[in-house]
Amino acid sequence: MATIRVPEEVPSPAQDSETLNQAFRGWGTDEKAIIRVLGKRNESQRRKIRESYKEKYGKDLIDDLSSELSGDFMKAVILWTYDPAERDARLANKVLKEKKKGINKLKVLVEISCTTSPTYLIAVRKAYCSLFDSSLEEHIASSVPFPLPKLLVTLASSFRYDKDKVDAEVATIESAMLREAITKKQLDHDHVLYILGTRSVYQLRQTFVAYKQSYGNTIDKDVEGCPGDADLRSLLQMVILCIDSPEKHFAKVVSESIEGFGTDEDSLTRAIVTRAEIDLMKVRGEYFNMYNSSMDNAIIGDVSGDYKDFLITLLGSKI
Amino acid sequence: MATIRVPEEVPSPAQDSETLNQAFRGWGTDEKAIIRVLGKRNESQRRKIRESYKEKYGKDLIDDLSSELSGDFMKAVILWTYDPAERDARLANKVLKEKKKGINKLKVLVEISCTTSPTYLIAVRKAYCSLFDSSLEEHIASSVPFPLPKLLVTLASSFRYDKDKVDAEVATIESAMLREAITKKQLDHDHVLYILGTRSVYQLRQTFVAYKQSYGNTIDKDVEGCPGDADLRSLLQMVILCIDSPEKHFAKVVSESIEGFGTDEDSLTRAIVTRAEIDLMKVRGEYFNMYNSSMDNAIIGDVSGDYKDFLITLLGSKI
Repeated sequence: MATIRVPEEVPSPAQDSETLNQAFRGWGTDEKAIIRVLGKRNESQRRKIRESYKEKYGKDLIDDLSSELSGDFMKAVILWTYDPAERDARLANKVLKEKKKGINKLKVLVEISCTTSPTYLIAVRKAYCSLFDSSLEEHIASSVPFPLPKLLVTLASSFRYDKDKVDAEVATIESAMLREAITKKQLDHDHVLYILGTRSVYQLRQTFVAYKQSYGNTIDKDVEGCPGDADLRSLLQMVILCIDSPEKHFAKVVSESIEGFGTDEDSLTRAIVTRAEIDLMKVRGEYFNMYNSSMDNAIIGDVSGDYKDFLITLLGSKI
Repeated sequence: MATIRVPEEVPSPAQDSETLNQAFRGWGTDEKAIIRVLGKRNESQRRKIRESYKEKYGKDLIDDLSSELSGDFMKAVILWTYDPAERDARLANKVLKEKKKGINKLKVLVEISCTTSPTYLIAVRKAYCSLFDSSLEEHIASSVPFPLPKLLVTLASSFRYDKDKVDAEVATIESAMLREAITKKQLDHDHVLYILGTRSVYQLRQTFVAYKQSYGNTIDKDVEGCPGDADLRSLLQMVILCIDSPEKHFAKVVSESIEGFGTDEDSLTRAIVTRAEIDLMKVRGEYFNMYNSSMDNAIIGDVSGDYKDFLITLLGSKI
């Protein structure tokens, strides 16, 4: 379930555009007004505001947000204002453009590939082609270091069957194939690749259950203990978690982004912005189960200013 | 360019449905009427006829065609009547369901993956999920023998960039990577897979040109001379041809289906039916260039009866 709160009476896109344009005018910027408008509109409403803004003022709203705002607040508002598929295409491109692609950056690709619906992932790939004159998968294949493209290309190219239909026999057979690959320390085995990269999430969840029943440990635990390429192991663990429970994955992202000194604002923003209209309510619940504390309070205690106000607006609080 | 001829004045879908229903009634079936109607309607007109038929008679037109017609004529008319993406999904499924998947059958998967537009291929994958409770790629991964799934899954999952934009430097670099894989007799090397499976057809054509310029032979010729798994080699050659020139590929399919004694009606039907609305005119031209004879005459001389009449209707002849 989503967390954002759309007011019962929503102004027209033209009125919202005007409010935003007003907020940009004169000395300083009225950040509160921007939060009040954009932070309380759903995907289709935001799209209409962007269209209306372009029509009324001849400029892209994103460009104006970019020149009027700054820092993490700006980044969060812009990510939120993009059409979701465009946003994810841009997030993926940002990772792929970097010369040094650390494993934590590459995880964004797994996140986009494994926590979204099959149809949505196709929309991201279409947006990627439109924006960057290249397919997402050719960019991965040609820029990510060995041995990771194998897994990442397969995941990004997937169009998984999306109905809740499970074959228990296949789950047992494929859990044994996964077990064999782990036992033989071959995490890049084709079987691992194709089982995790092509089966439906429902089928895979059943396979993970079958794995635990047959071999005692969770598959995640066994992958963790498997020697070999640490990056591949780390990505695979993330694939398993994203498929098994996107909510737990995002609760973990939020927790890791705020734990210790300093904050990883990019990850925090990404988690809140990408899930606020999908399942952030469930993420909040999982966070509580996992860390025995309130996700909202943890976030509020870690960030400040307009950035904080924007995030808590997406979290559904009244500011 | 397409070959089918839609009359200037087309009856309404309801009228066409009625003509078809009349053709099924009483003793015998009026095959000529079926050819006259369905053989001269484009994709969207056929879809409307099927909808209208369902509405008027409460039955699927495909079922009635299946019970009223027989043999290769029936198979051709039914393939033609399906929505194209559904047709290709069914063709792929037919191959994947077979216990013994000969290499010639598997080539259908390459054909669907490499001679169609990126958006169309996504439509085939969607149709596959709807019809067969499984994604196309998971069915390939779980049923095709090693080492072929690697290539076939990548091709079937592709969503290639579709604009005519080419990077000559990339073409030179990647032609060298392909050359190295061939020289080292590693046709299943990841580079081969990702270059052929993710780059746009325009980029790949440039890469093939660069290959010939640098190494003298065409890449097809060098792949042919490469030892190793004969099936993989054969599929790769087909991938190269399908990307380089779908028209040449289909001219070859037609020629091989009618050469020697007997006819491979399934392949002949597939080539004519799947390309009649796309580029069959060009296929005809390529056929003439390649075999110095008329494709239409060759087909006419090899088949007979209603099946022949239907094929030549799709070829644009007046019967």
